[in-house]
This record gives sequence, structure tokens and C-alpha cells, in this order.
Amino acid sequence: MPQINLDYLKDFVSEAEIFSKKKAAENALSALVDKTGAGAEFTGFVSLPKDYDRGELLRIKRAAEKIRRQSDVLIVIGIGGSYLGARAVIELLQSPMRNSLPHEGPEIYFAGCSLSPDYMYDIARLCEGKEISVNVISKSGTTTEPAVAFRFFREMLEKRYGKEGARKRIFCTTDKEKGTLKALADREGYETFVVPDNIGGRFSVLTPVGLLPIAAAGIDPEELLSGAAEGMREYLSPKFEQNAAMRYAAARNILYEKGKTLELLVSYDPDFLQMAEWWKQLFGESEGKNHRGIFPCSATFSTDLHSLGQFVQDGSRTMFETVVRFKQAKHSFAVTEDRENADGLNFLAGMDMGEINEKARLGTLIAHTEGGVPNIIITSEAKTPNETGKLIYFFEIAVAISGYMLGVNPFDQPGVESYKKNMFALLGKPGFEDIKKALEAKI
Amino acid sequence: MPQINLDYLKDFVSEAEIFSKKKAAENALSALVDKTGAGAEFTGFVSLPKDYDRGELLRIKRAAEKIRRQSDVLIVIGIGGSYLGARAVIELLQSPMRNSLPHEGPEIYFAGCSLSPDYMYDIARLCEGKEISVNVISKSGTTTEPAVAFRFFREMLEKRYGKEGARKRIFCTTDKEKGTLKALADREGYETFVVPDNIGGRFSVLTPVGLLPIAAAGIDPEELLSGAAEGMREYLSPKFEQNAAMRYAAARNILYEKGKTLELLVSYDPDFLQMAEWWKQLFGESEGKNHRGIFPCSATFSTDLHSLGQFVQDGSRTMFETVVRFKQAKHSFAVTEDRENADGLNFLAGMDMGEINEKARLGTLIAHTEGGVPNIIITSEAKTPNETGKLIYFFEIAVAISGYMLGVNPFDQPGVESYKKNMFALLGKPGFEDIKKALEAKI
Repeated sequence: MPQINLDYLKDFVSEAEIFSKKKAAENALSALVDKTGAGAEFTGFVSLPKDYDRGELLRIKRAAEKIRRQSDVLIVIGIGGSYLGARAVIELLQSPMRNSLPHEGPEIYFAGCSLSPDYMYDIARLCEGKEISVNVISKSGTTTEPAVAFRFFREMLEKRYGKEGARKRIFCTTDKEKGTLKALADREGYETFVVPDNIGGRFSVLTPVGLLPIAAAGIDPEELLSGAAEGMREYLSPKFEQNAAMRYAAARNILYEKGKTLELLVSYDPDFLQMAEWWKQLFGESEGKNHRGIFPCSATFSTDLHSLGQFVQDGSRTMFETVVRFKQAKHSFAVTEDRENADGLNFLAGMDMGEINEKARLGTLIAHTEGGVPNIIITSEAKTPNETGKLIYFFEIAVAISGYMLGVNPFDQPGVESYKKNMFALLGKPGFEDIKKALEAKI
Repeated sequence: MPQINLDYLKDFVSEAEIFSKKKAAENALSALVDKTGAGAEFTGFVSLPKDYDRGELLRIKRAAEKIRRQSDVLIVIGIGGSYLGARAVIELLQSPMRNSLPHEGPEIYFAGCSLSPDYMYDIARLCEGKEISVNVISKSGTTTEPAVAFRFFREMLEKRYGKEGARKRIFCTTDKEKGTLKALADREGYETFVVPDNIGGRFSVLTPVGLLPIAAAGIDPEELLSGAAEGMREYLSPKFEQNAAMRYAAARNILYEKGKTLELLVSYDPDFLQMAEWWKQLFGESEGKNHRGIFPCSATFSTDLHSLGQFVQDGSRTMFETVVRFKQAKHSFAVTEDRENADGLNFLAGMDMGEINEKARLGTLIAHTEGGVPNIIITSEAKTPNETGKLIYFFEIAVAISGYMLGVNPFDQPGVESYKKNMFALLGKPGFEDIKKALEAKI
């Protein structure tokens, strides 16, 4: 079970200060669980690990099997919360290099998350000569990026396999009844999965949004869900002292009050890179509003100690670090003995790289805290589906508590619409003529 | 030639304020060119595009040809400035998915930039059954991450090809005379290339450090260098009004004085992601010292508008954005017409995605500046080697000027040593016994 260590805050935040947030954190958790807080209509993720639709989960597993049987490539079409969670879990549990490595199941590529023609061109080329299935994920069906990508892939599939053939290869994750994608899917007879009404995009990785691509990659969704269910017992516990989610929320709110405006989420594992991207949306979109919030940023160490390390050690003192540590790596890899010892590193020979990585972590922890950067440590047992389910649930509960403590609604994202409206107008969307004129005068 | 547009700062910084930095910027440029500023011994990058060793460049091109002939995979071993530039240029000019796409030349993987055993395990698996060459890049040869990786790959090559065979497949980029890697290379007869003494790691992409892997990928290093040489004429020009590097340095220093502690480098191209990583080291390591500096962060839009967009639009007002825009994409990709127009996007049908991406950029520019985020725009003509050479040179000169204006030495990185010392001690390196004891008491 992911645990939190706040011992390395002691030069910055006292245990008494953390304790002073007990009441606020407990109130926030109550508001979340009792659905009395802001945005309560979007808190379905809290009880999801127990409430999920078992029939749909069975259908997910069957669809995943079908995708694996019939495809060399699965194209997952979605943006924001519609792809980040799936990509994060697949890369953490398998590898960021999964598609190049020997692997079971199809190669998995993510489309509809960019408007770059060069990106689309590359993705299209990756599909040449391969058997393809598509999972398009969009609540409404009208978000530009995924809609444009889906137009392309739907046409490609219909050309290649015919309308009948394409029907067996298109899987839609969308609203249960409304929206253009749902209407199209019903008309065309595509299999559909539900984006629940009471769970926002950034909290949706354990719904069909995340679980279908994850299952297609060969990861058991039930293990993720059972991990999250264990997380419920741990992180919904009302006792502040024993609840890591409340303690994380309390610590980061205190650090924010003390002027720390940047949180650097650090791991020592390139596998975690996309989990950090998922976390950035989860925390940034939940808390970054009303001109408030801690900016979420990430780094992979020791890699980035050789690029950002100087700044963290000795630059502006505006940040704190949250380090996600995995006790156990997936593999062992021992350092080679070198007879000549040219590099002087024979004192490491035979040692597992995981052990060296852990010493790098400890050495960095001391160097950075002594340099003036508060450190929070979150420890996960291992990169397994079960432990990952717990970690996901931990962060989801923590951000909800933290957002309530900050005094914002952690479940809306009004600011995301601004660029869309402007973009539509500039693109000449019917009905946006006046806005277009006003915008063009500003360019 | 990359140009800068400061018009969208007008609500935050007046033209008079920018002009007030004219003298300081000009003095900084003079100090750089005349080598009278701090760290002048590391400013060899300024004249490099004219001074580079043509004989060595020829050897680079020959070695690249040899690598391409004999290899399915090139393993580039390096960390920080020893890999970021090469990876950035290859991904920008070819593709982040280059290794999976049809491509000329070997697959290229980067090792020695992590201590994660899972990462090493994956890289080792990627090499199974393939013909391999190695380019190890390390000034000293004793940096732990690349040294550990090189031990492994050297043994692998010697086992597979014999000592003689391995000799033809190992290329060392290192100090011209000192260091353990140079000594080893001379003893074993590996071909060597020089990391110049007067150019720091983060400024070394246009030296053999970057150019050998770049050439092996099939990109002409002479075009990069000729672009940089054109950049010299532009960005060493002493006239503040016409010098984009000086104006960029001035603008960001003013924004920093006004409390903007975070710079978000934005592009609308996933191809640019690693260039942003390169930029983060360049700016973070040059300016993040003496408890000063703007924290460098990056995002890819529109992708991350669906994760970080809410925060940028409406979160804490501590950031400004610097948008790198390419006028021309590598490919066209038109939006598909859909007879039913289910998603209502037929008004986009036939339009090139590049055009939509550009409208997204403009719509976002207005939304974010109106939301309180100052925007700087840097425009590059296209993703070509020549233009990329100019862009690299632009950023290198800009950060030098900016660092001098900030009052720091932009060419040192004393903070990078702290974690290394601690790590060595914790690992039990001979001679570190006392430090080890002191550290272990703190854990």
C-alpha cells in the first residue's frame, strides 16, 4: 500500500503545522465521501472500485481479447483524460518501449491527442500493412482533436475492411446515451462502453476509458480495480494520522501557504514518465483555478539531475519535490566487473542497478533538502497492476481533499473552454462570426 | 531565421521597459564576445560554427557512414548534455517514432542516462539479434550512469564480435587527452572524437558530442553548422533592436523581476518535445543558481491544453509562456470529409491540419494573454537542419546574455556535484567513509 514519509519536511514544516491541518483535511474527506462539497456530482470515482459495472467489465475483457486476436495495431483515439491514464498504466507496468520490444498483444499508438499533421502522418505510416483496430474515446464526440483523427481512421478502416469489417474493429467509449459519437455508434452498430456521468475525464482511468486499452495491452483490469478497492479502505479512513492521502494534501497545502508554487513530481524510473503526465493533469486541472494552485511539473532522476539538478539544488527556492519510489523494480541488472577497472567503478561490480538507483535517491534526498527543497516521499511496493490501482486511487483521493482544502472545486475545468472557443471562431465555425471578427482584430 | 515577437507582452511589459534593458543586454553580449564575463573559458560555442575542426567533421561523417553500414542499432551512451542535443535534433528533424517507422540508418537508442535496471533491461532486449555499434560520450569517463552502461555494452560487443570486432564498433567522444575514457580508447584503439575544453556539456550539440549520433541518423551535420554560422551574423549583431537573442533575454529578465518564476516552453508539435528537454537543461543549468533563476518547464499543445490548460488559463499567475512556432510542417494532412457530418466538423473538411493547429495556437495565444499569462513567440521557418542550427544557436546566445543580465555565471553548474558525492559515499566508494557515516545518520 503506498505510504507517505513527511520526515524530510522537518526543516520546513513542523509536525505541529501538519497536525494543525487535521480538522480541515478530515472535513474535506467528509465532504467528499458525503457528497456535500463542490462538484459532488463528479465524485463517482470515490466508490467506483466497488460500484463498477461487472457486466461491462466482462465486455471489456472480451473486447480486449478480440482486439488482441484481430490486430497488429490498436489505435487509441482520445485527448486529456481520455488517453493519459491508459498510456500511463501501460508504460509503467510494461514499458515506454513496449511497441519496439517483444510483447503480447497489438502495438498501441495514441492518436487524436494532437493537431500536428506530422504526428498524424507518422501514426498513419505506422499502420501501413498492419491489421488495425480502433478505440475512440470521447464523451461528446465533438472534441476537435479526437474527432479529426476518428474521421481519418474510420475512413481507413472502411476502405480496407468494408463497412461490415470496420464495424468489428471500432470500439467507442462515450456517453451512455447523449452525444454525436454515441448516436453514430448506435447507427453503425459499433460496440460501445460508457464514460460515466459522475466521473470527470482526469479521474476516469479505472472506467472503460482506461480499462479497455489497458486490457488490450494484456494487463488485467480486475487487478487494478482490486488494488483501488484496497485503497478505499486505506485512504477513506477518517483518521488523519494514518491516512496518507490526507497527510499528502495537508503537507502540500502548507507548503503552498509558505510560498512553494511548484511541485516537482520525481521518480527514478523512466517507466513512470507518463504516470507523471497523468498526475499533472489530475493535480493541475483540479487545483489550478481562481488564480490559485501549485504548478505541477515532473522529472525523471537521475537522468534529469544532469539537466534540472543544478536548478533544484541551487536555483530559485520556489519548489518542493514529491518523490514516488518503487521498492521493487521489475528486473535485476547487475553491474559488470571490469578487469582493468578503467573507470574506477569496480566497487560497484556485481551490485544490482536498483540498489545504486536507491542510493542515488537517498543521496539526492539529502542534497536537495539541505539545499532548501522540501521533500515528500511516496513509497509504492512494486510496479504491479494491484499496487498501481492503489497508487491511482491514492492520488485521486488526495487531490480531492487537497482541492477542497485550497478552497476550490476540484472537479470542474472552466478554463479549458477558452482556447476551444477562440479556435473554433478562427477556424470559421458557423455561428462564431462575431467572435471571429473580434479575435482577428487582436492578432 | 528564428524571429521573436514581443507584441503579446504589451499588457505586462511596455516597450519602454524592454528598451530600458538595452544597455545591459548589449554589455552582456559584449562580455560574451570579448570573453570578459564570468566563465569566459567555456564560451567556445560562440565562434564554434566558424571554428570547428573540418578534419574532425570529415571523420564524423565517415564514422557515421560506417555505423550505418554495419549496424541495425546504434547505442548512444551519455547523460545530460551528452545525449539531450542529439536526441532532440533527431526527433525534431525525423520523428520521435523514428525507430518504429521506416527509416534509413540504424535504430538509435539512448543508454547511460538512467540508473533504472528496468530501463537497462529493455535497452538490452532491444539489441537482441541485432548488429550493434556504440557511441559512448563522456568527458571524463567516470560519470556513473554512462560508465555502468558502457561496461555492459563493451562486454556485450567483445563477447559477440571479439576484441577486434568490438574495436570497429566502439566510438568514443571524450576529452582530447585526459580522463579514463580517453586512456581506455587509446589503449584499445577505439576511434575517438573530441569534447572541446572550452564548451560545456549543455552547449555541445554542435560538437562531435551531438554531431556523430545526428550524422548516424542520416542528418547532414554541415547543414546544422551552416545554419548556426548564419545565426552568428544575426545574434551577435550588437544592435539591440534587431537582435532577437538580446530581446528574448531582456524580456525574460523583466518578467522575472515582475515575479514570473516559471517559463513554460510551448510548441504545437510532438516532434519538439525533446528539444524542450534540451532547452530545459540549457536554461535551467545556466541560470538556476545563487537561489535565483526562472524555472524551465515545457508543454506540447494542443495535447496538454487538455491537462495543463486549465492551470495556464486560470491558476496561479506565476508563469509566462514562450511559444516556439514552426511556419511549415514536414507533411500535409487534410481533414477527411464525412458525408453524415456526425461530429459537425465538416466546416474543416479538406483543411490541412497544420492550418487548424495554427488557429489553435492563435486562439490559445489570445485566451492565455487575456487570462494573465504573458506570451513570447519565437518563429522558426521550418524543421530543417539549417533552420535548426539557427534555432540552437539563438537559444545558446540568448541564455548566455540572459544569465549575464541576471548576474550569474551561465557556464558553471556547481550544484550538480552534491548528489553525486552523496551517492558515491552511500555506495561505499573508497575514500568516502566519513561522509558515508554522516549521511547514514541523516536517513
